[in-house]
Amino acid sequence: MSISDRFAELAHIRDSLGAVEADPSRIVMEKILSPTEALIAGKRTILVGTNNYLGLTFEPELLDAACAAMHEQGSGTTGSRMANGSFAGHAALERDFAEFYDVPSAMIFSTGYQTNLGLLMAILRPGDKVVLDSHSHACIYDGCRISGADFLAFRHNDPEDLRKRLRRLGGDAEGALVIAEGLYSMLGDIAPLADLCAVAKEYGAWFMVDEAHSFGVYGERGLGLCEEAGILDQVDFITGTFSKSLASLGGFCVSRHPEMQLLRYGSRPYIFTASSSPANIAAADAALRAIRTRPEIKDKLWANANRLYDGLKGLGYELASTVSPVIAVRVPSKEEGARLWNALLDEGVYVNLVLPPAAPDSAALLRCSLSAAHSFEQIDAILSAFKAASAGSDRAVGASAH
Amino acid sequence: MSISDRFAELAHIRDSLGAVEADPSRIVMEKILSPTEALIAGKRTILVGTNNYLGLTFEPELLDAACAAMHEQGSGTTGSRMANGSFAGHAALERDFAEFYDVPSAMIFSTGYQTNLGLLMAILRPGDKVVLDSHSHACIYDGCRISGADFLAFRHNDPEDLRKRLRRLGGDAEGALVIAEGLYSMLGDIAPLADLCAVAKEYGAWFMVDEAHSFGVYGERGLGLCEEAGILDQVDFITGTFSKSLASLGGFCVSRHPEMQLLRYGSRPYIFTASSSPANIAAADAALRAIRTRPEIKDKLWANANRLYDGLKGLGYELASTVSPVIAVRVPSKEEGARLWNALLDEGVYVNLVLPPAAPDSAALLRCSLSAAHSFEQIDAILSAFKAASAGSDRAVGASAH
Repeated sequence: MSISDRFAELAHIRDSLGAVEADPSRIVMEKILSPTEALIAGKRTILVGTNNYLGLTFEPELLDAACAAMHEQGSGTTGSRMANGSFAGHAALERDFAEFYDVPSAMIFSTGYQTNLGLLMAILRPGDKVVLDSHSHACIYDGCRISGADFLAFRHNDPEDLRKRLRRLGGDAEGALVIAEGLYSMLGDIAPLADLCAVAKEYGAWFMVDEAHSFGVYGERGLGLCEEAGILDQVDFITGTFSKSLASLGGFCVSRHPEMQLLRYGSRPYIFTASSSPANIAAADAALRAIRTRPEIKDKLWANANRLYDGLKGLGYELASTVSPVIAVRVPSKEEGARLWNALLDEGVYVNLVLPPAAPDSAALLRCSLSAAHSFEQIDAILSAFKAASAGSDRAVGASAH
Repeated sequence: MSISDRFAELAHIRDSLGAVEADPSRIVMEKILSPTEALIAGKRTILVGTNNYLGLTFEPELLDAACAAMHEQGSGTTGSRMANGSFAGHAALERDFAEFYDVPSAMIFSTGYQTNLGLLMAILRPGDKVVLDSHSHACIYDGCRISGADFLAFRHNDPEDLRKRLRRLGGDAEGALVIAEGLYSMLGDIAPLADLCAVAKEYGAWFMVDEAHSFGVYGERGLGLCEEAGILDQVDFITGTFSKSLASLGGFCVSRHPEMQLLRYGSRPYIFTASSSPANIAAADAALRAIRTRPEIKDKLWANANRLYDGLKGLGYELASTVSPVIAVRVPSKEEGARLWNALLDEGVYVNLVLPPAAPDSAALLRCSLSAAHSFEQIDAILSAFKAASAGSDRAVGASAH
């Protein structure tokens, strides 16, 4: 295929979104009013489609720390950690993650995408075996692909299917890598991590969990779903991102294996990239402190999630999973999804429209991501908008689904 | 290979650096004093091993813009451009790049690494042909690898070798992608872009140039080496980074093809990553304004480069290329490289020690990266340190090389 053909292929994708009048790339947040509100097309809009779970993006302690860091250390590091860009703040943030998880090893990366790519490129070699959840995020698939490892997917959230795949690997199951996420961001469902971990360990496989959407949100101390599942002493690698609950940009990996520190010498997306800017580091560090010291933020997020979940159920919407900070509404067709998405925007509510192939097992999803910064008044306004939007429907959406 | 074996392999790399007492990962900038000075191991040290070419990291206009952006828009976007993280600032910065280059298309990415990965993953498909300079940066190789394209290298900076490789591709040369960089950061040498472009075009190939180290530094207007070579109207894709002359974190791609905008619909490292934080965007935008309006900054960089280059030559050091903002000193062995590197650190000067395989055609390199923010006094102090360091040598380093 030539690059010209590729342009034509991409134009087709754009046009198919245009056809349902739901091109996400046309949405620009013209002015950000708060963690939960922005001007979109000149209209004050409630944001319930971002991953600002703890709503920390405007916390004075984050902003003050980030501005101070920038004045003390500059606007960028202009170098990689390995060559010339390892500042005291990078090392301190790694110590903070290691201490929070009570593990010997933590590494930070410049983006969440590069975190999974960086871990997988460093630990996997061509011919290594990986068994990953079929709903894994793009950067997990990309990391497996670029490593040259042999990877295959087990059925989403199905420990028995994982067992079957590992059994079929025979002797190769020992030392294989099993990958799951904590909270899956499309359907808002959570992984049965204790069961998956038990199966992985039964076969002598390594176990990696991406807590991008669950860190700071689950677990008594906010460590994520591995904490909640009681497997922190068994999971081998936990990755996460700064760009969701931590309100910044970057990512982290922690491990109970001290050897993980060695990945600094062999992870191309860690070595060959500029390190995180001082502002990003300081914001993530301040957010981490907030997670550790202010559990009430997480409690508020859950109160909001429960309120929206119950309200949407009450309106007759079909929800894709049990309650979580990501509530995905199933819609019977992509046209109806686009219509509802636009109707919600008209009502001043921004959610994510998820179309196939990104919408697993569904024609379309309207994905709501809650924030601790939402007020109950905003939750109720979101519910009113859903009510008004569905009233415009030819038929009740999923009204009989419960 | 198991993950345990991989740990052992990486431990070997660490130990080999430890053996020459030159482990770069032990360098931490404890306190950043200015764009050109930091405390390292408690000692005030001149930095001549960062890529802070224009020295803008502490410019009040950058810091003020970044802090203001953070207060107005928050510490992070908590979303990807395609889903929920496209702020007005992202679109404005893209317009600024497009306007500066006078092209219809510009896209920005969250890191420089993801810029090349994102462009290459979007435009290449398995079976596509790529011919790239053998000294290409890791992220160019990684982008080619993950795309599944067939890629092969032409001899560094050798248009005739490029011609030979394209000829051997036969009919596949038409529509192939040729990749070069502007300034190569290891040896500090520049590509013969006009000749490479002419060869690529002769065969009907696309031509991509990574100006990571040359943007803002070369060209009358600071556009880079494509401007200097007079091929802006022929090159198909130009990429660059925010983490060098632009003093921030992120990257850009510009193209004379309006279709490049379509890559938003098919670039996984663009779609599946959080967008750049408001502070990073504002800093890059302010730095871009500085490049456009203050050509004297670039002039100062060149004055510094010439002064250091002439001084090192005068001291008898063997330099790897003609003068550029990256001046690489060739050292006859890695042990001598490590000794000199440590001696320079003792003298309060930080350069990069580059060991094989990263040091092309050399046993070792001491890489100096100049900044416009260096004073002539600092340049002279760097030269004094090199003089003192080489005085401790068993033999004059490269004294007979000129």
